[in-house]
Amino acid sequence: MSHQKFQDCIDACVACAVACSHCATECLKEEDIKMMARCIQLDLECAVLCRSAAEVMSLGSEFSAHMCRICADACYACAEECEKHAERGMNHCRECAEACRRCAEACEEMATAA
Amino acid sequence: MSHQKFQDCIDACVACAVACSHCATECLKEEDIKMMARCIQLDLECAVLCRSAAEVMSLGSEFSAHMCRICADACYACAEECEKHAERGMNHCRECAEACRRCAEACEEMATAA
Amino acid sequence: MSHQKFQDCIDACVACAVACSHCATECLKEEDIKMMARCIQLDLECAVLCRSAAEVMSLGSEFSAHMCRICADACYACAEECEKHAERGMNHCRECAEACRRCAEACEEMATAA
Amino acid sequence: MSHQKFQDCIDACVACAVACSHCATECLKEEDIKMMARCIQLDLECAVLCRSAAEVMSLGSEFSAHMCRICADACYACAEECEKHAERGMNHCRECAEACRRCAEACEEMATAA
Repeated sequence: MSHQKFQDCIDACVACAVACSHCATECLKEEDIKMMARCIQLDLECAVLCRSAAEVMSLGSEFSAHMCRICADACYACAEECEKHAERGMNHCRECAEACRRCAEACEEMATAA
Repeated sequence: MSHQKFQDCIDACVACAVACSHCATECLKEEDIKMMARCIQLDLECAVLCRSAAEVMSLGSEFSAHMCRICADACYACAEECEKHAERGMNHCRECAEACRRCAEACEEMATAA
Repeated sequence: MSHQKFQDCIDACVACAVACSHCATECLKEEDIKMMARCIQLDLECAVLCRSAAEVMSLGSEFSAHMCRICADACYACAEECEKHAERGMNHCRECAEACRRCAEACEEMATAA
Repeated sequence: MSHQKFQDCIDACVACAVACSHCATECLKEEDIKMMARCIQLDLECAVLCRSAAEVMSLGSEFSAHMCRICADACYACAEECEKHAERGMNHCRECAEACRRCAEACEEMATAA
């Protein structure tokens, strides 16, 4: 698969990694952090996997599809958790959930196509 | 400094990291790889520093300005090397040089502002 | 500087990155997370910078010394915060503080020597 | 699975990432770089996946086993390529191949156990 074909998925992954790191750091400033513990944890895991997926795709790696499969799973899990807090008005969680959904879909497509 | 103020610089860093990794992998496919050795080396170093700068900025870190200072230096060095090969018609080097110049300027501004 | 000369500093950086990530995830399980917020934040920032320093040194990069300078600063800040919680009996913070101190010293030496 | 149980695998992953990055940069200094192109490419891919596996394990992530599965595959591929050059006397390739074999085995065990 060409670098060009990877580009949309790479963009979704890097945007998601940034959103996850930002969400984690904003969660740490919330009044009731306890409620955000699982959100922060999933943000951190998801950010690692998104960065990795983006990096192997940038290298045109043969492992990209498998990496995207894991990344999609992490994004779905993180989106689900963030959506709970988004409903209660947390903007960083809403933005993170949206970035996770977009990334999950892009990665799922990449994982299936390859 | 707010996450929002970091956003343009983060975008420039992640785009540069992707361009550098892609340039490295394309250089490895060139007929005369020997001539590309320093380009590949700088691509790899620059990619690490861009990813790092983007990540600490995403976390709103107090170390962002210092990280952007190093990142700018690496981007200038990589841009200069890539421009030599861009002149001889290598597209991945031209694209990488452009991403490096944009990132260097964004990082320089961030390093000075903070 | 040779890869071999970098090896001790690389080892200290990767050990510190692992300790910081582990400390962050253990802090998230604490009863009083609120008190750990700054610790988690510094763990995350420090982990990024340690990974970066280790990676550029592994590449034998000319940017290693500057990267080690920032890494040392982050390690000192993280150690100082972790030590507060270590005094109150938190083992993950004590282990993290020790790893941070070792890494800060190794990085400081590298930054000065280069 | 506990952080402690992850520790040996984490150590193997970070050692392998360092060996891969170092091997790539040493390959770039070889007289006949052309012959090393696939080795460099696999070094880079393997290093990304090893760093990722180490980072998610440090976070005690539920995605660790899946990440270790991909990491093992990349390590086997990189070891196989490096061993060809190790036979012709390249020390960085021999060291990298050994680190890859150790990491592949540790990751394989982790992937199966989880």
